[in-house]
Amino acid sequence: MNRQGIIEAIRSRKSCLCVGLDPDMAKLPGHLPRNAAAITAFNKEIIDATRDLCVAYKLNTAFYEVLGATGWKVMEETVGYIGNKHFLIADAKRGDIGNTSAQYAKAFLENMPFDAITVSPYMGSDSIQPFLGIPEKWVIILGLTSNKGSIDFQKQPLGDGHLWERVLQTTSGYGSMENLMYVIGATQATDLKRVREILPGHFLLIPGVGTQGGSVAEVMANGCNRDCGLLINVSRSIMFAGGGHDFAIAARQAASRFQNEMKDYL
Amino acid sequence: MNRQGIIEAIRSRKSCLCVGLDPDMAKLPGHLPRNAAAITAFNKEIIDATRDLCVAYKLNTAFYEVLGATGWKVMEETVGYIGNKHFLIADAKRGDIGNTSAQYAKAFLENMPFDAITVSPYMGSDSIQPFLGIPEKWVIILGLTSNKGSIDFQKQPLGDGHLWERVLQTTSGYGSMENLMYVIGATQATDLKRVREILPGHFLLIPGVGTQGGSVAEVMANGCNRDCGLLINVSRSIMFAGGGHDFAIAARQAASRFQNEMKDYL
Repeated sequence: MNRQGIIEAIRSRKSCLCVGLDPDMAKLPGHLPRNAAAITAFNKEIIDATRDLCVAYKLNTAFYEVLGATGWKVMEETVGYIGNKHFLIADAKRGDIGNTSAQYAKAFLENMPFDAITVSPYMGSDSIQPFLGIPEKWVIILGLTSNKGSIDFQKQPLGDGHLWERVLQTTSGYGSMENLMYVIGATQATDLKRVREILPGHFLLIPGVGTQGGSVAEVMANGCNRDCGLLINVSRSIMFAGGGHDFAIAARQAASRFQNEMKDYL
Repeated sequence: MNRQGIIEAIRSRKSCLCVGLDPDMAKLPGHLPRNAAAITAFNKEIIDATRDLCVAYKLNTAFYEVLGATGWKVMEETVGYIGNKHFLIADAKRGDIGNTSAQYAKAFLENMPFDAITVSPYMGSDSIQPFLGIPEKWVIILGLTSNKGSIDFQKQPLGDGHLWERVLQTTSGYGSMENLMYVIGATQATDLKRVREILPGHFLLIPGVGTQGGSVAEVMANGCNRDCGLLINVSRSIMFAGGGHDFAIAARQAASRFQNEMKDYL
């Protein structure tokens, strides 16, 4: 999906919601068996309950890898089920030397129908470039994350600013607004103004809303640009909104609340 | 495998060689079919040809993920085949918020018999800590990598030194010499002296020898401590030393050359 496709989906659904599909075994509704078929079916029900309320889905690979080869199949089947009307993100946080990053790019952006993969910037340009250059595919670089450990390195002073600002400044030259996005943690919403000084036009993937405490209103007020420019991710607060047989209804209600908060800004 | 086990293996085999098992489809000997069974068999032949010459094996997850669910099975079967006389590294370069890193830790260090996983430090303390605390399991943190992109962030001035030095200083407090190692690119061998000022006792995983151009002699001269303290990784120069039916013999000869360079220092 290209940039124009994302913008049109946001306008027509009046939503910039990204639903995180992280099937944590410990949080699945109690009545469901703990096996691959049940998890795949659970994911599909969550997808069907939220399709018209969101523009993107994000699968965090950790929750599939923990199930081994079977989990990889669940990931493939889940992302294949969504179709091409949503922007599909592999939240994999990969990054390695060039010939290895090229393998990750193939695994996620060619062998599977993901539109984008999240990438850690620590290894620099040649760890990121192999992910670029595939038409209509995207790299989402970790900029400023929502966890408390972001203070350890990302927020350390470097040059005129901080490491995370340098990451935005340097890596934005690796691609364009058509194939690069950034992860910016919503719990740092006051920093969004600074992000928009550096990157007025890029799309941002905003985690940390919901369970992690970020506010949709604060993010939208500080982060929107004229194309919206935001994908706001919510995982646990939607996926595990209900703990029983009503989990899909509860997920839809939760997604609807987030979409309602968004539509006034769109 | 604990620290003492690693040290004893190094002493008895007079080797600190780590063989990288990265079955790149484009580089496999031409006569082999491109399927899971053939790749697993290829890996097993490389393992049997090098067992007595090395103390560790490192599987880069990218080369397995590119094969999908089948590749995950090849990884499981490969690491299961090696047994418990070698230190087993999942070169996965993961790292995420706490509840997600915990899933990665389970996937690699509990569900599979890996002794260690490589982790990117960009997200800080709470992205790394979930990997620690499993008895006799290790985290190997990216310190200074061997690729040219290391200049983009790792080698940027930060405080009194550079980002990579700060990463070593800060993260060494997260664990101990019994459960933390660092990736230090061999192509930066002159920096090894500085590493040893910061971390005199820790084990270092040194990639970049062989195809990437690093020298065993330079690494050993600058990086050894009284326990050796090094695992020197070679992937392509061993695995793809021969391009035909003699690939296992060629791999053994290549591994033997590296082990010969090492034994004078051990």
